[in-house]
Amino acid sequence: MRYFIEFMYDGTNYHGWQYQPNAISVQLKLEESMSIIMQEKIELVAAGRTDTGVHAKQMFAHFDSEKSLSQALLYRINNILPVDIAIIKLFKVNKNAHARFSALSRTYNYCISKNKNPFNNYCYFYNRQLDVIKMNQGAQCLVGKHDFTSFSKGKTSTYTNDCEISILSVEKHKDEILFVIKSNRFLRNMVRSIVGTLVEVGELKIPVSRLKEILENKNRSLAGKSMPAIGLSLVSIEYPKEIYNE
Amino acid sequence: MRYFIEFMYDGTNYHGWQYQPNAISVQLKLEESMSIIMQEKIELVAAGRTDTGVHAKQMFAHFDSEKSLSQALLYRINNILPVDIAIIKLFKVNKNAHARFSALSRTYNYCISKNKNPFNNYCYFYNRQLDVIKMNQGAQCLVGKHDFTSFSKGKTSTYTNDCEISILSVEKHKDEILFVIKSNRFLRNMVRSIVGTLVEVGELKIPVSRLKEILENKNRSLAGKSMPAIGLSLVSIEYPKEIYNE
Repeated sequence: MRYFIEFMYDGTNYHGWQYQPNAISVQLKLEESMSIIMQEKIELVAAGRTDTGVHAKQMFAHFDSEKSLSQALLYRINNILPVDIAIIKLFKVNKNAHARFSALSRTYNYCISKNKNPFNNYCYFYNRQLDVIKMNQGAQCLVGKHDFTSFSKGKTSTYTNDCEISILSVEKHKDEILFVIKSNRFLRNMVRSIVGTLVEVGELKIPVSRLKEILENKNRSLAGKSMPAIGLSLVSIEYPKEIYNE
Repeated sequence: MRYFIEFMYDGTNYHGWQYQPNAISVQLKLEESMSIIMQEKIELVAAGRTDTGVHAKQMFAHFDSEKSLSQALLYRINNILPVDIAIIKLFKVNKNAHARFSALSRTYNYCISKNKNPFNNYCYFYNRQLDVIKMNQGAQCLVGKHDFTSFSKGKTSTYTNDCEISILSVEKHKDEILFVIKSNRFLRNMVRSIVGTLVEVGELKIPVSRLKEILENKNRSLAGKSMPAIGLSLVSIEYPKEIYNE
């Protein structure tokens, strides 16, 4: 039987989602804790990989088990998981449902704050003046289906660099600026380089008119800086209803 | 000239406030960062010591400098401090003002939550049924001036174990329970053992009527367990107005 877990984590202390030798990853901690409580080897496939230090307020992963599992397990698993990882839900899905390949979209937030707040470690402390109207104008140039090579890091093994961004907004709330970006898929480092480019637009270093050119040139060096992991959170993943048809 | 800084920290990653060899303390990080930016050796005396993992939403420390210092320094110091420590204010005080000895009171919060939330690492995840009315009745037995030896850890070098608690309240907010405790002074481990004892009152393991006896016996083993550091935050310190008279 195939199950999904919905979970969240503060990524500050982890080398990202993905298991890797000699580093502590969220996947390692979840698989360890679930295997102990469920008394079988659990292997998780997540909706995506988050990089070192990136957070997830909503993430999904699938695993297979012959056992009939209930929500009651979660309290016990959460009790042995570190404080910065929590499983929210466990539910049975269609045996073809795949946490990564079935996902229709992912939404990320990036948060910048003018005030340093040690109790908010998912906002990047950044005190410069930013023109939010210009950043929104720049954002609208990136909405839609484009080749995002200019906003990706290193070589990617994917067959295409086309992504379809359906939402890209920049909102100011008191001393914070929140970027919301929703796309069918993301390339490596894409959110952080898009936000970094828009920040440079907000600082009047990159004119709005140059964004189309940056996209078309398919050259990372034309876009702006990459923002630090601390402000980045995966916040939502959409799946089709069919995954629930067992 | 004597200066005060007001600062805050998420204590999760620190071996408490106090400098100690071979461990990372908040004092070490603050003194290092301030010394770099101010280009002189800064030594801090704080209002009190918080233990490993304990947080401070408001803490003060004093230091001396011959320089005329301004708030503008803070942005630069905050920029090199780790994300989990922030200085809020810098102000000149009377040369006799002492961060520890001038303080009139300290207030701590202890937070318990029924839901695990990785983005709230200042609440202890605890799912048992607690009788808040009984916990408040127990709390009232501890208000006032008493010898708190039964709620302190190990031998203390203090001349007296008398403390005067002016506020001790237990409030339920949705899935969280918040303990607020204000006293002129605190013994080592005092808040955590008071909260642990009240939790056992809330679980009906310790009757309210036994609290007076626990105080009078001056024996730590009679009181309840000590709660984990994660839920404990120093939230406020009061000083007399005179410290501002330069």
